[in-house]
Amino acid sequence: MDIALPGRIFRSTEKDAFGDIEVASDRYWGAQTQRSLQNFKIGGPREKMPEPVVRAFGILKKATSIVNQAQGTLDATIAGAIQQAATEVAEGKLIDHFPLVVFQTGSGTQSNMNANEVISNRAIEILGGVLGSKSPVHPNDHVNQSQSSNDTFPTVMHIAAVTEITHHLLPELVGLRDALAQKAEEFQDIIKIGRTHLQDATPLTLGQEFSGYVQQLTNGIARVEATLPNLKFLAQGGTAVGTGLNTKLGFDAKVAEEVSKLTGLDFQTAPNKFEALAAHDAIVEASGALNTVAVSLYKIANDIRYLGSGPRCGYGELSLPENEPGSSIMPGKVNPTQNEAITMVCTQVFGNHACITFAGASGQFELNVFKPVMISNLLSSVRLLGDASNSFNVNCVQGIKANKEKIDKLLHESLMLVTALNPKIGYDAASKTAKHAHKNNLTLKQAALELGVLTEEEFDHWVRPENMIGPK
Amino acid sequence: MDIALPGRIFRSTEKDAFGDIEVASDRYWGAQTQRSLQNFKIGGPREKMPEPVVRAFGILKKATSIVNQAQGTLDATIAGAIQQAATEVAEGKLIDHFPLVVFQTGSGTQSNMNANEVISNRAIEILGGVLGSKSPVHPNDHVNQSQSSNDTFPTVMHIAAVTEITHHLLPELVGLRDALAQKAEEFQDIIKIGRTHLQDATPLTLGQEFSGYVQQLTNGIARVEATLPNLKFLAQGGTAVGTGLNTKLGFDAKVAEEVSKLTGLDFQTAPNKFEALAAHDAIVEASGALNTVAVSLYKIANDIRYLGSGPRCGYGELSLPENEPGSSIMPGKVNPTQNEAITMVCTQVFGNHACITFAGASGQFELNVFKPVMISNLLSSVRLLGDASNSFNVNCVQGIKANKEKIDKLLHESLMLVTALNPKIGYDAASKTAKHAHKNNLTLKQAALELGVLTEEEFDHWVRPENMIGPK
Amino acid sequence: MDIALPGRIFRSTEKDAFGDIEVASDRYWGAQTQRSLQNFKIGGPREKMPEPVVRAFGILKKATSIVNQAQGTLDATIAGAIQQAATEVAEGKLIDHFPLVVFQTGSGTQSNMNANEVISNRAIEILGGVLGSKSPVHPNDHVNQSQSSNDTFPTVMHIAAVTEITHHLLPELVGLRDALAQKAEEFQDIIKIGRTHLQDATPLTLGQEFSGYVQQLTNGIARVEATLPNLKFLAQGGTAVGTGLNTKLGFDAKVAEEVSKLTGLDFQTAPNKFEALAAHDAIVEASGALNTVAVSLYKIANDIRYLGSGPRCGYGELSLPENEPGSSIMPGKVNPTQNEAITMVCTQVFGNHACITFAGASGQFELNVFKPVMISNLLSSVRLLGDASNSFNVNCVQGIKANKEKIDKLLHESLMLVTALNPKIGYDAASKTAKHAHKNNLTLKQAALELGVLTEEEFDHWVRPENMIGPK
Amino acid sequence: MDIALPGRIFRSTEKDAFGDIEVASDRYWGAQTQRSLQNFKIGGPREKMPEPVVRAFGILKKATSIVNQAQGTLDATIAGAIQQAATEVAEGKLIDHFPLVVFQTGSGTQSNMNANEVISNRAIEILGGVLGSKSPVHPNDHVNQSQSSNDTFPTVMHIAAVTEITHHLLPELVGLRDALAQKAEEFQDIIKIGRTHLQDATPLTLGQEFSGYVQQLTNGIARVEATLPNLKFLAQGGTAVGTGLNTKLGFDAKVAEEVSKLTGLDFQTAPNKFEALAAHDAIVEASGALNTVAVSLYKIANDIRYLGSGPRCGYGELSLPENEPGSSIMPGKVNPTQNEAITMVCTQVFGNHACITFAGASGQFELNVFKPVMISNLLSSVRLLGDASNSFNVNCVQGIKANKEKIDKLLHESLMLVTALNPKIGYDAASKTAKHAHKNNLTLKQAALELGVLTEEEFDHWVRPENMIGPK
Repeated sequence: MDIALPGRIFRSTEKDAFGDIEVASDRYWGAQTQRSLQNFKIGGPREKMPEPVVRAFGILKKATSIVNQAQGTLDATIAGAIQQAATEVAEGKLIDHFPLVVFQTGSGTQSNMNANEVISNRAIEILGGVLGSKSPVHPNDHVNQSQSSNDTFPTVMHIAAVTEITHHLLPELVGLRDALAQKAEEFQDIIKIGRTHLQDATPLTLGQEFSGYVQQLTNGIARVEATLPNLKFLAQGGTAVGTGLNTKLGFDAKVAEEVSKLTGLDFQTAPNKFEALAAHDAIVEASGALNTVAVSLYKIANDIRYLGSGPRCGYGELSLPENEPGSSIMPGKVNPTQNEAITMVCTQVFGNHACITFAGASGQFELNVFKPVMISNLLSSVRLLGDASNSFNVNCVQGIKANKEKIDKLLHESLMLVTALNPKIGYDAASKTAKHAHKNNLTLKQAALELGVLTEEEFDHWVRPENMIGPK
Repeated sequence: MDIALPGRIFRSTEKDAFGDIEVASDRYWGAQTQRSLQNFKIGGPREKMPEPVVRAFGILKKATSIVNQAQGTLDATIAGAIQQAATEVAEGKLIDHFPLVVFQTGSGTQSNMNANEVISNRAIEILGGVLGSKSPVHPNDHVNQSQSSNDTFPTVMHIAAVTEITHHLLPELVGLRDALAQKAEEFQDIIKIGRTHLQDATPLTLGQEFSGYVQQLTNGIARVEATLPNLKFLAQGGTAVGTGLNTKLGFDAKVAEEVSKLTGLDFQTAPNKFEALAAHDAIVEASGALNTVAVSLYKIANDIRYLGSGPRCGYGELSLPENEPGSSIMPGKVNPTQNEAITMVCTQVFGNHACITFAGASGQFELNVFKPVMISNLLSSVRLLGDASNSFNVNCVQGIKANKEKIDKLLHESLMLVTALNPKIGYDAASKTAKHAHKNNLTLKQAALELGVLTEEEFDHWVRPENMIGPK
Repeated sequence: MDIALPGRIFRSTEKDAFGDIEVASDRYWGAQTQRSLQNFKIGGPREKMPEPVVRAFGILKKATSIVNQAQGTLDATIAGAIQQAATEVAEGKLIDHFPLVVFQTGSGTQSNMNANEVISNRAIEILGGVLGSKSPVHPNDHVNQSQSSNDTFPTVMHIAAVTEITHHLLPELVGLRDALAQKAEEFQDIIKIGRTHLQDATPLTLGQEFSGYVQQLTNGIARVEATLPNLKFLAQGGTAVGTGLNTKLGFDAKVAEEVSKLTGLDFQTAPNKFEALAAHDAIVEASGALNTVAVSLYKIANDIRYLGSGPRCGYGELSLPENEPGSSIMPGKVNPTQNEAITMVCTQVFGNHACITFAGASGQFELNVFKPVMISNLLSSVRLLGDASNSFNVNCVQGIKANKEKIDKLLHESLMLVTALNPKIGYDAASKTAKHAHKNNLTLKQAALELGVLTEEEFDHWVRPENMIGPK
Repeated sequence: MDIALPGRIFRSTEKDAFGDIEVASDRYWGAQTQRSLQNFKIGGPREKMPEPVVRAFGILKKATSIVNQAQGTLDATIAGAIQQAATEVAEGKLIDHFPLVVFQTGSGTQSNMNANEVISNRAIEILGGVLGSKSPVHPNDHVNQSQSSNDTFPTVMHIAAVTEITHHLLPELVGLRDALAQKAEEFQDIIKIGRTHLQDATPLTLGQEFSGYVQQLTNGIARVEATLPNLKFLAQGGTAVGTGLNTKLGFDAKVAEEVSKLTGLDFQTAPNKFEALAAHDAIVEASGALNTVAVSLYKIANDIRYLGSGPRCGYGELSLPENEPGSSIMPGKVNPTQNEAITMVCTQVFGNHACITFAGASGQFELNVFKPVMISNLLSSVRLLGDASNSFNVNCVQGIKANKEKIDKLLHESLMLVTALNPKIGYDAASKTAKHAHKNNLTLKQAALELGVLTEEEFDHWVRPENMIGPK
């Protein structure tokens, strides 16, 4: 973290309740941000507060200034400058001015102050003032007016989560689901051997197999969508402990309304602000849905790579797209790398969920102070699942081909077609036939004929996979 | 597990495809159950298949025999005997005849066969036949007719889960929520110090604090309820791989209907049987909801025990009921034991959820073979959360009393009431006052008067906690 | 839990500091146990305090009474009766008198009192006194002398863990490792295709493949053994908060010595009793080792079932023993049920570990009050891993057979033997050959000859799997 | 990820087995890296392969080229250039040329190729050749000589883990432990009330309380150190599947020797390469140790923040350093922010461990393809625990002060000193005294005198906390 690059010029005027502190002159942040930078050297750039949180601060600070202005507590000029600066934050233009890491104070206070400081300094600049002077736009009195970190941070957690889930994760899940659905349709007439316990079982179509994946993702999409209503409840208006001290009546609902306007998403004020500050069950709930989606994706991607295993010595029923050389030592080797990437993502989501669960349970009295680590892990899961769904979709699923010959060969070699004979020759004779074939390495038909349990015509008439793929 | 107690008489007639095996004469189970008993000596009695699963098998086998009879594949006499025997299983009367453990085959096949064997033998007995003869009621041909373990076991998983959640967990959660709501009302006028970051903060009422808990549980109840629709989808009718081979058209929907009649709960046939056999995302989803509820309960129970810490050297704002002596060495000590029990339950639920997540992701092709461990852990979470909610409710929450004197004393000693002075004397003077009080161990009023920032009358007029517990 | 069976006769004399309470006359337990039974109806019989903990209480109470007698604080007659009764507890003879569940007070105080009450009543009986009279053997003053639940419970946690790990888990892990080692030797000359990314790769021997499993378990055994030293530290002597108040100097070390004598295992007194009561890091550490072992076993059992998948449509390189019928619908189907059982056990261990981690982190000040749930989960992991290792060993590994024909067929069909040609014809020509074979469904030799990159003699000379299984 | 900045000039010559691809001219990487960049758009910059892995590649490639040269398979000029380029990678100078993310192929092949490409191009540059020409230094034939991604990536996992643990984590843990030890000494004479179940208990010294933390960390340091031997085993020499195909005899041991020389740490070649490629149990084991350390740190940091809660309305026994303003709304508020940061880190480590456990269990046949996510999570835990230990040490622990007055006040108000009277007046009278004091809000002495159980002199003589902090 480049806290103090040599040769950088410092503003000497920055101060807070703890005294003077030097801040780089080309940064909009102020004393409290700088202090956090120095006090929390934990994790480095990889652990910076996620950008969607920063952008959400832009949205929120704009919304609060609009409401403060409307409620008559904020001067129009100042409010205007704040709104312009906040818009820039919301658009990601000032992201370099948000250097803080996740592992700071557990309320996210320092990131709230980072937002207050950057917006006030940028607003001061817009109004022609002196950076660091806190005048005419004060980070606390104006940008943070009617707010406390304790309600702004949970609010931006929810704004960031809803935005990312809505605009990134859900579309990618839908895309992947649709690609699998197209494959299910494409494969609907390909009859293949089923496998239960990894052992040969009765047949189904490859399309039926893929239809199971489609159902998993359809359910997964609904599971994620079902978490949105609780995530759309905003804590804003609770201030320090949930009571709303130092807000005007109606501030909470109006802010939710403004945020809804700015985002085009229907946020509402949380029905109980004490819960909204002290617990983050909605985040745990959302993570639980992502965990379930990861469970689904792990199963799907794992199946597909096994079905594609080979080319000669595996199941070999599917051909996956070849995107890159697989080995520097083995010529011609191609690997299911997209499946590997997405299953790794799934394990990361499982881990993130464990972290969120622990952190979510650890709230104390009026505040949960594991906020940054919770939202950081949730956004990680959202981003990774979205990205990986897209990558898996585009670079793998869309290019999957069925190896019809291999599928057909395996189907007809299988002994489990014997199940079709149960109603004809009885379970015992059928069992004897299968075992005879297995032991002597015969086809089912050969075994049946050798044992004389039925004629060739009968066999051909009765043992038809296409009659085994549905109820009668 | 006492598989073969000395002196027990064995039936020598039991056999299956693997040959003869001895079974105790006072047991209804048969060869396959006995074989599992001998092959899976894992975990002992603590790990037996949970009773709700066994009861669900009773319900299911009754339902399937009704549908088979209706679809004309099962003789009325046999169907009648099966239904009588299955009813006894459903009522828990034959629980001693279900000795198998969770750690058996991952499809639960052996427990399905256990049900088939017990019901057929009991039905044979009802019809005056010879135990173990498989006649006139055959475990496979009659009791298991139109079924496969691969669809019966996921079906009983769902029946058991829905039944236990509906009849046990939800009522207990509602009971606990209501008790907390009553306390929130009882405490609505008690103003106390708030605590954020564990540090003294602005005040709120004890009722407001409890209202946060109420909201958490209200949400939690909704979260659990929201998992029921997916759990109410039954896999029955998929048979071996999801295709429904060997069922008659409509079998699946009719079974769901019968199960609904028998349980009074609205089950439906799963829209996609491939998903229903190969994945158990609905179980993972439900476990995720329980995980969130455990997160809530952990926070609530933890808060309450800290608020009750003392009697002299802790927060001491609440008195928890004294249910038992707390110490053999310290006279008069009483401990928050109910809080300890329920928070331990929460950690168990977190662990169960991790197990279910891993197992849920591990399905392969047409079958997930982690079924027994998944349902065992889910039912454990359901039972423990239900039991603990009741115990915590009855033995702790209902008896909580507010220590009004202590609460009032702390409130007025607190320095954070200074926040009320911000708008009057400014943040800087307020800050100076608080710090002066802190350093010199004064009350806020003393400090304010010493510093001369306002008069006693002004202080008494402005610093009123009752004006600090809501927006203006 | 049969707390109060109808018709049972109650002793009316039981009382504790909380007043009178009725206890069944055929039970040795007393008022505090009874009170716990009534106050903690959580989980039922499946959740009873594990038997190894109860037995460890027998060992500990015997040891403490020996030391108390030696230090002159306990009368010889009383000590003798306590020791006789405690021996019966240690031998499991009085297990029916320990009805309490895990989800009780988090210090295990009630189970400590259960032990005190049972031993005192049984000792009273031995000495001809009246049950429930607390005379001449008092549960607190005599059986619990010099002790507190706060040090006895962590002590029995460690005694139980060390005993079960030493006598149960380690031998079973060694047995399984040795069985795998025998297979590695048996299979040392069978050359097979390797698989990386599930794709065909360069060859190795089946023995080499199994040697990796052996190494995993050899490491796993060492990992578990490495946790014993910390588990062998006993908290006894810390009494209420770790200071050792109300013990005589040397009590702690002498108890550890006596426990060592009684168990034949070298326990020592913990170097810091404050750590030993307030944290259970040694349990978390041990669970971490079990978690790693479960990771290994999951991989091993998973590989083996995939290698055995088939019989016709899978990898089919191994034949696993057939222990029971696999399907009621598919004649002749046999499933890798032991692999399923042990992988389910692994997921349970992962879950147990998550629980233990959370609970272990949740200690507060001088006491961790998640003791029962921690030891319950640890003992569950120990028991399940031991049992499953044995079951997997005896019912699967020992009977594994290599399908040499299939292995050989796959090996020679594989295209990755082309790697042997790299040094002869160059990577590019080798790559072209492999791709030509793949596209046109030829053997490698056919492709090479068709492309004219080398002669048949050259091919046969160079492409020898037996030269590809080690460095040069 | 800035894959293709506008205006950047591309080399058109880059090609691999999959054809041509454009690469930015100011980058050393080549076609395979570029292809990965385009195929795995997952997670962005936050998810880049961790720097310690990149540096370890530098070390490894230097070591292998030294051994290849010594074994006569690599020309001295080429080897020299490779070694110079690899040194630059090891020193972190070329970090900007390693753009790939963790979520790529699960073997880390693409990062291995990234290293091969960067080193070969830089070596070409050193030797005056043309970037992208693969001449005179070929990425595969020379830089990757005698290697496969399958053995290099596990090798760099171990090098990176050992290096970071040794040079970063362990020193910081030792530093924190020593700081706590110093506090334990500083506080050794301060007698305070103990708390068990959060309730007032018998006294101990504040030094004793801190000594428990010291013991936890002393054990934790030993736990982490105990994982190093297994981490110091290197997979190098196993090549594609563990057999060592295409290496010369002794290559494996010599590489371990060279790596040891280059790092000053005693690495050894892994005893079984099949295990070393197919499983990463050593990583899971190490993560288990970090998990235990996180459990300890969570407890310690949590205790300290509760002991510091206040200033007026909490336990208030400790004063934590004031590092920054705590609230924008509450003047003078200071929060235990370092404790919050480190406990958030602990939850992250718990999550990372869950991820590593799942990924570690998911190896298949000859390869575990969850390598990047495993090492990424392990290094995250190592870095975060190290950083947070330092931050917590420097910014919190070293500045902790005991509030002696408050401690003393609480100690003497406590009723649990009554325990000292047990041997004098009996448990019953002592209990009565404590309860009388509790109910009537008296001091213990007042209650004792009121009840007349002893004189003031006797009370003062007997009730001495300083006599209650150890055995007699």
